[in-house]
Amino acid sequence: MRDPDELRALAEAYLGDLALNPDLYGQAESVRYAVMVGGKRVRPVICLATAEAAGVDAGRALPAGAAVELVHTFSLVHDDLPADNDEERRGQPSTWARHGEAVAILAGDALLAEAFRLALSYPTPAVGRELAQATLGMIGGQYLDITGSAPDDSTLHKLKTGCLFSASVGLALWVAEIPEREQRPWRAFGDELGLLFQIVDDILDGDGYVLRHGEEGARGLADEAAERAQMRLEQIDADTSVLENIVGGLATRTS
Amino acid sequence: MRDPDELRALAEAYLGDLALNPDLYGQAESVRYAVMVGGKRVRPVICLATAEAAGVDAGRALPAGAAVELVHTFSLVHDDLPADNDEERRGQPSTWARHGEAVAILAGDALLAEAFRLALSYPTPAVGRELAQATLGMIGGQYLDITGSAPDDSTLHKLKTGCLFSASVGLALWVAEIPEREQRPWRAFGDELGLLFQIVDDILDGDGYVLRHGEEGARGLADEAAERAQMRLEQIDADTSVLENIVGGLATRTS
Repeated sequence: MRDPDELRALAEAYLGDLALNPDLYGQAESVRYAVMVGGKRVRPVICLATAEAAGVDAGRALPAGAAVELVHTFSLVHDDLPADNDEERRGQPSTWARHGEAVAILAGDALLAEAFRLALSYPTPAVGRELAQATLGMIGGQYLDITGSAPDDSTLHKLKTGCLFSASVGLALWVAEIPEREQRPWRAFGDELGLLFQIVDDILDGDGYVLRHGEEGARGLADEAAERAQMRLEQIDADTSVLENIVGGLATRTS
Repeated sequence: MRDPDELRALAEAYLGDLALNPDLYGQAESVRYAVMVGGKRVRPVICLATAEAAGVDAGRALPAGAAVELVHTFSLVHDDLPADNDEERRGQPSTWARHGEAVAILAGDALLAEAFRLALSYPTPAVGRELAQATLGMIGGQYLDITGSAPDDSTLHKLKTGCLFSASVGLALWVAEIPEREQRPWRAFGDELGLLFQIVDDILDGDGYVLRHGEEGARGLADEAAERAQMRLEQIDADTSVLENIVGGLATRTS
């Protein structure tokens, strides 16, 4: 079993070598720019680690892991557009600041379509179905966020952040051909990951959970989420040591 | 076999009743707005008619036909955004003019994701794969168009318009489970439809082909494309009378 750093390197290499559809012509440049601006590749790492825990080689899950990363990237590209006016993303010019608004909109669109192309490279349509549901949930969450119309914070976070984390686990389960009736404990684990990630994000940014619960309160909630995630892993009859390691990393990350 | 008007009514009713993912929350309103602003539903009608010619009931092809219409709609919503500054679409306020830019971007995103959800409702992933390829081609075509970087007009039109017309036929072939080795004449037919549609569009708008070939020249090219499409249909061993009817309608349409 590979450790998270090895899995991250695998995902990074796969994304770097990704053969985009040649019909994209020059549009491919901005798509590649958006993907390579980088990030921690948290979602693909979770996807690959889940696949290995479920008994298949991480290589088999690379298209699925890349698909979830492309959906995440598409959401950032569209979120950064002039409406939000984010000229920087990860210390570099955002895609629209670099390539213009019209091309950035198309770049996000292409990222989403490429994500589905990757998810559809598997023999089962279940991978693509999971991705579609998660993408729609994430979009719903972004709507609730920008319009301030969320019924409650939990719903907001579950959709906006949670859906893609849950899908990172769910996609790997389909790749590993884990039957639906055996997926429950894995999915319960995936659901905790998004919450854990969100709370720690808020602690690092000093907003969200920190504003409502104080820094100490937020830290307590993060620890509880991490604990629940670890408990879920104990209920899975497989070697989940790398996933445990990932939970620890998410709980204690400093960037 | 149903005639084009019956097929259009079927598609319209299906689109009107479309159950959007409940996770979209309030975002669903702008998605529904964009879909219901309407249009001629040319692509779903072609998809349904192809399915019936290939021996399955149009009802079986409705999710596929709706999927291609949603991709077309998503492309209009994003194309109308302030970069293009189109405040009207089909005589009504465009989605961004009605719902704001940020929500309109999300509406386009949701339309694309819903399109894949529909395409993935079939047991075979081939439907979704066809949709992903066509969507990427269309995006490439839009890029070539807005940047003026197309290698030639034929490439531009094949991508920007042709891809979704070809897919309207291709999706139906997968739904009807026509084996790949028997798809060639059908696909050759589909390829002509996009060109025919584009030339007639330019005749109606007085641009594109009309500027390069004059109105009479453009009309001649449209007639040739229609003739080739009919010839392709003759090579298909099935009752393609409704498709012939559609070709005639596309060639002589006045709006």
